[in-house]
Amino acid sequence: MKSAKLLKSLRIDDPDRFRLASFDPSCTAGLAKSDAEPLLEGDIERLRDLQERLYAEHCWAILIVLQGMDTAGKDGVIKHVMTGVNPQGCDVHPFKAPNEEELDHDFLWRAALRLPRRGHIGIFNRSYYEETLVARVHPDLLERQPLPGKLVGKDIWPERFQDIRGFERHLARSGVVVLKFFLHISKEEQRRRLLDRIEEPAKRWKFSLGDIAERTLWDKYAAAYEDMIRATSRPHGPWHIIPADHKWFARLAVATALVDALERLDLTFPKVEGAAREKLAKVRKVLVSEGRGQGSR
Amino acid sequence: MKSAKLLKSLRIDDPDRFRLASFDPSCTAGLAKSDAEPLLEGDIERLRDLQERLYAEHCWAILIVLQGMDTAGKDGVIKHVMTGVNPQGCDVHPFKAPNEEELDHDFLWRAALRLPRRGHIGIFNRSYYEETLVARVHPDLLERQPLPGKLVGKDIWPERFQDIRGFERHLARSGVVVLKFFLHISKEEQRRRLLDRIEEPAKRWKFSLGDIAERTLWDKYAAAYEDMIRATSRPHGPWHIIPADHKWFARLAVATALVDALERLDLTFPKVEGAAREKLAKVRKVLVSEGRGQGSR
Repeated sequence: MKSAKLLKSLRIDDPDRFRLASFDPSCTAGLAKSDAEPLLEGDIERLRDLQERLYAEHCWAILIVLQGMDTAGKDGVIKHVMTGVNPQGCDVHPFKAPNEEELDHDFLWRAALRLPRRGHIGIFNRSYYEETLVARVHPDLLERQPLPGKLVGKDIWPERFQDIRGFERHLARSGVVVLKFFLHISKEEQRRRLLDRIEEPAKRWKFSLGDIAERTLWDKYAAAYEDMIRATSRPHGPWHIIPADHKWFARLAVATALVDALERLDLTFPKVEGAAREKLAKVRKVLVSEGRGQGSR
Repeated sequence: MKSAKLLKSLRIDDPDRFRLASFDPSCTAGLAKSDAEPLLEGDIERLRDLQERLYAEHCWAILIVLQGMDTAGKDGVIKHVMTGVNPQGCDVHPFKAPNEEELDHDFLWRAALRLPRRGHIGIFNRSYYEETLVARVHPDLLERQPLPGKLVGKDIWPERFQDIRGFERHLARSGVVVLKFFLHISKEEQRRRLLDRIEEPAKRWKFSLGDIAERTLWDKYAAAYEDMIRATSRPHGPWHIIPADHKWFARLAVATALVDALERLDLTFPKVEGAAREKLAKVRKVLVSEGRGQGSR
């Protein structure tokens, strides 16, 4: 697989011309599942090494934003791509319906609180983008927000998108690399996965009747996603459309994009040079000779 | 005093033409100290009432940003203007040199964390603007920030200003009224106040040798303030230049601007109407008749 070519085809570099319908959720880029497994393993190994460098260099941060319809596989991506990574440098934040304190602030606030530190990878399982999806598809939720009425006008969504672009541009300028993934499944695949959740005892806890209600709004969500991606895919925070009907392919695609982004940072372990290096040499001598003393005891 | 006229003269509505030198730090708008006292008292009383409405309506938030050279009177403004306000709805955050965790995030992060909730007045004693002042006047401080080197280019200050404008526009759209005050003192008045701090035992704890070092950079700070105000005074977050050589005048000017901003929000206690009102009438009856029962016991 030419991963560069694959990545380019998934990244939305020309958002004005983006149409969700032109992406096939069942695409596997010509790969079979058996091809994908060693590729994912290789990516995960590379990721582990890159994350160590990221942490040691303590300069950049990575923010991964995962969005997708219910059952699209967000939890699975986190589990299967990130499990090999040292959790000391990797923080996951799932975003549920905003609580009272969160609604008492601007919609970016709860996300800003949880931004990753330098050297860390932060993963948003859902994110501030929910505001432009759930509150858009359910106008009554927007109405119930304690916003001053005169601020909720007809331009609210373009304004929200502008605010998000500004937020992400600011993050990029501050050393936070923002990578956004839309896990793209078909309605038919969602039907199968919801049935699975009902029928398999180990998956039943994940099933929520709310998911069925949201499913009836499928087309409205798809339109909201399309508009959101057009308005917010920018060089400082590109969206990737991840075909997700095949879980193994979605995981590989995210892992490959992540490795690619980290490799482009050209991460290196901090070098110790000059006077500090000389000091280290002296300390080393002391430690070595202390060991000799121990041995002769 | 025509407060509307005074306010207009202090608010920077035309930032491109702003020159700090054209503002006289010792201006008192023709007022004597004895005139100002009852005016300030009236403002404080009005403020107390407005803040109760702000809190009850639970919709808007107020963010007050206080900036100024050392000894400009920021603490005094907070003490003398805000002391009458219910502290349950008023939070003050002083910003010192950023700590390690704060430097591990973008420069707006530590401020975003402390934004006021709806219904509250938040006061930033110094703020995110310090980044465009201290780190600008001391390039070594900027250099020591753990930012990726390639992000610190020649456009860093225009970029920072753009990020601040975006941040404040987003806050305004979210119901946070941003009011910014530059307490403007003369270098001569600072000299007197620093001497006071050295000579008066009750003020000595406030004196820091660092203030003397910063004083030698007066002109650089003045230039950085001027540039900052030109770049960031906008309708959604206007700067006010507060002549501050006379403490009593500075306090009155801030109080008047604050009352004016709150009055323009047209704050009202939430109304109880319709079915809820009928319910209240029933509950009232029960409480009244319970009292009669008590009386006859």
